[in-house]
Amino acid sequence: MNRYWSKQIEDLDPYVPGEQPRDQQYIKLNTNENPYPPSPSVADLLRNFEVARLRKYPDPESTDLVHAMAAYQGLNASQVFVGNGSDEVLAHAFQAFFRQDYPILFPDISYSFYPVYCKLYQIEYQQPALDAQFCINIRDYASTNGGIIIPNPNAPTGIALESGALRELLADNPESVVIIDEAYVDFGAESACPLIAEFPNLLVVQTFSKSRSMAGLRLGAAFGQENLIAALQRVKNSFNSYPVNILTSACALASLADEDYFQQCREQVIASRERLSIELQQLGFEVFPSSSNFVLVRHHRAAAAKLYDDLRSAGILVRHFKKARINNCLRISIGSDRECDALISALHKILA
Amino acid sequence: MNRYWSKQIEDLDPYVPGEQPRDQQYIKLNTNENPYPPSPSVADLLRNFEVARLRKYPDPESTDLVHAMAAYQGLNASQVFVGNGSDEVLAHAFQAFFRQDYPILFPDISYSFYPVYCKLYQIEYQQPALDAQFCINIRDYASTNGGIIIPNPNAPTGIALESGALRELLADNPESVVIIDEAYVDFGAESACPLIAEFPNLLVVQTFSKSRSMAGLRLGAAFGQENLIAALQRVKNSFNSYPVNILTSACALASLADEDYFQQCREQVIASRERLSIELQQLGFEVFPSSSNFVLVRHHRAAAAKLYDDLRSAGILVRHFKKARINNCLRISIGSDRECDALISALHKILA
Repeated sequence: MNRYWSKQIEDLDPYVPGEQPRDQQYIKLNTNENPYPPSPSVADLLRNFEVARLRKYPDPESTDLVHAMAAYQGLNASQVFVGNGSDEVLAHAFQAFFRQDYPILFPDISYSFYPVYCKLYQIEYQQPALDAQFCINIRDYASTNGGIIIPNPNAPTGIALESGALRELLADNPESVVIIDEAYVDFGAESACPLIAEFPNLLVVQTFSKSRSMAGLRLGAAFGQENLIAALQRVKNSFNSYPVNILTSACALASLADEDYFQQCREQVIASRERLSIELQQLGFEVFPSSSNFVLVRHHRAAAAKLYDDLRSAGILVRHFKKARINNCLRISIGSDRECDALISALHKILA
Repeated sequence: MNRYWSKQIEDLDPYVPGEQPRDQQYIKLNTNENPYPPSPSVADLLRNFEVARLRKYPDPESTDLVHAMAAYQGLNASQVFVGNGSDEVLAHAFQAFFRQDYPILFPDISYSFYPVYCKLYQIEYQQPALDAQFCINIRDYASTNGGIIIPNPNAPTGIALESGALRELLADNPESVVIIDEAYVDFGAESACPLIAEFPNLLVVQTFSKSRSMAGLRLGAAFGQENLIAALQRVKNSFNSYPVNILTSACALASLADEDYFQQCREQVIASRERLSIELQQLGFEVFPSSSNFVLVRHHRAAAAKLYDDLRSAGILVRHFKKARINNCLRISIGSDRECDALISALHKILA
């Protein structure tokens, strides 16, 4: 027992994010960042920002941002919650909804922060296994449970749920909150947001980190019926009343106002992914079908751990999870075409 | 029981921050914001910020910022923790240290977020009463306890601990973590930071919201021996690995580099406070001796609730706590001299 610590702290199993090297010498394809900068309107905003505004606290309700996001999604403001990155939003959601009498469910291969939250909030969980092709079988989520969280598309597989599966999942679990974690949805999956009006048990979580190129800004959001949003507000206002700072709100509003740029970046990443997937297949990789800004790949003979090391030595960071079932896979973020070319060229040499 | 909510959520008693009106028509003396803008170096930083940096995640360890703050305080980097406002830092500290077998202790009149955290983390607490002059008596904190948190100077009284009291408190409680919440310390109290080397049970919490004029940026910090900082890191990395966004870190570094401006603002606020205190006394107010950027006052005949309303009608917001012992007091933040003059002039009319 560590002196001074609360009992539970020693048992925590903190999340380890992908490396963020502090120098610029790596091609970073390891943390699913967008290769393109945020909208030029964000640059304009910062250049002209009236710095004296920082002396005041933010609006604790983030009213302007919440209204803009509601309008963007076709929801009411009372159906929108914002936080300091989707990680914070998810943390609050685990606390607000998942401390129940039954274990919650999420896939055995999924975002590795979920079990970390469970430890933090002392939540039991079970992990139905993905099938051999790393797909989620919705029927595995029909047992009595304290809640469900599923990323769509899933990470680190990149695979999206089949059409119709979401509705089935929600209808099968009317007494459970079902969180759909849509961190990567803008790269090709179908959002659950249109189902919010119909399902009081649906919470959708999104982020500005990926498709809006602002991982450094830390903005996440949740969408759901008012009753769920109210619970998140109660937790937030018991933790930190002002989670979203003034600059983050302003930058996010600027980004939301530039739909053309958003669509262009999205489409460019998708196009690069399709090209990269073909080139990786030509190099002997199995490429799981991705709806994300990354691909999960497995080489037919080269070991993933070795490939990871060799790529690192060649100045390219990818992600290798030392985890059952995927420990021979690599997760590769979609970079710019120049970065993808550098990856392919490095792999050519490594595999030669 | 609200459908879908975790059991505990209904019992929460969320914090209610002072109003942040979204229009500009009020003189805001209600949330202890600094009347002066952040250092001009922060404006320069934003004007020249390379916006493409936002596409990447922040350094999860906030290495540059942590090192700069350590150097500023004369500590090692392993003795510094940063978070999204001191509210988040305090929340993590309550969870990391205060879930113990005995109740924690904090003054009956103090920062009203403390009991909120206790509900959130199911921590028992006791609240030794301030004396009749609203001073903390250190001997009230000598009983067996699960931890202690004291703001120095205290809020909303503004009163600082007597010299020597801190050391006595720490020595009296070798088995408890003692958190000194120094949100307002730069306006005239003595920081506990020099005691960190001597006391493994001391955690000091500070913020950039007040003396550094960046409430809108959300940056807080904790200082303590490595063992305490490690516990905070474990909680943070189980909650949100990247709490401090890239812009916040960059602005904070710019602020830290401009010591002259920091000292000027600090001194100006202190000078305005002393002048305002005299003027308020001349108007018939009892002014508690403040070491903060606010004063707690009580009029010898006018009721606080009525004064609050009348000031609001006159376009001036101050804080009135509907709380035993201080419900006939007002807490008034120190504004610019122009704002203080407007306050005095409005009070003249109201009290006439």
